[in-house]
Amino acid sequence: MLVIGELINGMYKAAGNAIKKREKSVIQKLAKDQVTAGAGVLDVNTGPASIEPKSDMKWLVETIQEVLDIPLALDSTKADVIEEGLKVVKRKAFINSINADDDKLNTLIPIAKKYKAQLIGLAMDKRGIPRDRIQRSELALKIVSSCIEKEFPIEDLYIDPVVLPVNVAQAQGVEVLESIREFKLLCDPPPKTVVGLSNISQGTKKRSLINRTFLVMAASCGLSAAILDPLDSELMDALITAELLLNQHIYCDSYLDAYRKK
Amino acid sequence: MLVIGELINGMYKAAGNAIKKREKSVIQKLAKDQVTAGAGVLDVNTGPASIEPKSDMKWLVETIQEVLDIPLALDSTKADVIEEGLKVVKRKAFINSINADDDKLNTLIPIAKKYKAQLIGLAMDKRGIPRDRIQRSELALKIVSSCIEKEFPIEDLYIDPVVLPVNVAQAQGVEVLESIREFKLLCDPPPKTVVGLSNISQGTKKRSLINRTFLVMAASCGLSAAILDPLDSELMDALITAELLLNQHIYCDSYLDAYRKK
Repeated sequence: MLVIGELINGMYKAAGNAIKKREKSVIQKLAKDQVTAGAGVLDVNTGPASIEPKSDMKWLVETIQEVLDIPLALDSTKADVIEEGLKVVKRKAFINSINADDDKLNTLIPIAKKYKAQLIGLAMDKRGIPRDRIQRSELALKIVSSCIEKEFPIEDLYIDPVVLPVNVAQAQGVEVLESIREFKLLCDPPPKTVVGLSNISQGTKKRSLINRTFLVMAASCGLSAAILDPLDSELMDALITAELLLNQHIYCDSYLDAYRKK
Repeated sequence: MLVIGELINGMYKAAGNAIKKREKSVIQKLAKDQVTAGAGVLDVNTGPASIEPKSDMKWLVETIQEVLDIPLALDSTKADVIEEGLKVVKRKAFINSINADDDKLNTLIPIAKKYKAQLIGLAMDKRGIPRDRIQRSELALKIVSSCIEKEFPIEDLYIDPVVLPVNVAQAQGVEVLESIREFKLLCDPPPKTVVGLSNISQGTKKRSLINRTFLVMAASCGLSAAILDPLDSELMDALITAELLLNQHIYCDSYLDAYRKK
C-alpha cells in the first residue's frame, strides 16, 4: 500500500507555526521523519489559516524538495493553490483532491493532464457525503467517466470512498470497506483507491487503535493507498503485518525491520 | 464473533500438568479467566500426551461445569473421546472437529445429531491440506452435502478453511480470507465459519501482532467464530474494535470496557 504522510498540514500546530514563521528545518524534519517511517508520498496542505496559500504552497514544496526527492500530494480545495505547487514539483505529483462536481471535474482534470499529475477523486459532490455504497459507486463512476471522456489515464486516478468518524456515522465503515472492493469493478483497468484514514477515529478516545484496525480491514479489501500518520509506529506495524499476511512482502523473522530498512 | 477460548488444552503446560494431577482449581481458573476476557465457548482438549483421554475429557468437562454454565467445544481426533464429553455436557456443545473424509462424516455427523451438538468441519481430508481456495470450497461443499444428506442442520455447522503458519505457507493467508467469503455462497442458509487463529503465527517471532492482524482481516471477511487466546488483551481489543467498525456494537467512548462488562 502506498503510504501518504499527512503531517505537513497547517492544521497541525507544529507545521502551522513553521509555515507562518518560514522555519524550514521543522518542515524538513517532518518530511524526513515520515519518509524514514515508510511514507512513499507526502501530503502538503497549507492549512485553513493560511493567509497566502499560494506562496505557502510554493514555499512548502521547495522546502521539502531541498532535502528529499519524493512525490508530493498537493492538498487544497483551491485549483490555483494546487497549480502553484504543480509548477515547482520535481516528481509526478498528486492533486488532492477533486470530487464529482462538474466544475471540479472540468477545472482540475485538464490541470492534472497538463502537469501529468495523479488525481485523488472524492466520491462526493455538492449534495454532501454519500449515504451508502451505491451512492459511492455512482459518484465514483461519474469521476471515472469524466476522466475517460477527457482522456485522463485511469491508472493515475485514485478514488476516495470518503471515510467518516465511527462515533457519528458508525454504519458508514462497512459501506466504505465494500466500496473499496466495488470500485475495482467500475472499469478495466480499475481506478486505484485511497482513504483519509484519520477521519475514522476523529473525536474518539482510542484513535490509534481505531485507525490501525480500520486500515487492516481496508488493506484486506485491497486498498491501494492511505493518507495517514506514519509516525504512529503501531499503525505502521499493523500495516506491514497486513501486507505480509496478504503475501506482499516475503516473511522473515525480522520482517518489520526489513520493511523499514527498505 | 463467537470467541472460543483455546487455553484448556493438555498441549499447554499449565493445563497439561493440571490434567495429570487432577488439579481442579487450575482448570477452573483458566475457564473463568477466559470467560471474563470474552470467551463465549471453551475448547476442551486433553492434549496429545493424555494416557486416558476418555476419562480426562469427562473430568475436564465436569470440572469446568462445576463453576461455569457455558458451552464447550470438545476437541479430539477420537470419536469416542468426544462422545465421552457429550454424555456429560449440560449446554449445546461443539464437536471439534470432523473433516471431509467419509469415515469422519459417517461417524461424527450421526453422533452430532444424536447429542444435538454443533459441528466444526475442517476443509481438508486424507490427502492433506488444501492447496487453494478452490480446493477449500470443494472440501467444504462435501461436508455441507453430507450434512444435508444426513439431515444435520446447517445452522449448526462451522467450516474451518484451515489456517497455516505464515512463515511456511505465506500464500495461503489470502486463500483462507477469500474462502471465508466464498463459504457463505455454498448454500442458503450458509454454514458458519471458524478458524484456529494461533496457527497463523506458529513459529514466528511476532505472534500476538500477527494473530490480531489476521483476526481483524478475517472479521472484515465475515468470520463467525475463532478459536484463540482471549487472555491476549491486545487481540481482544483488536477484535472488539473490528466489530465496532463493522457496526456490530454501538459506539461509546468506553466501548472496550463496555464490551467486557457485558
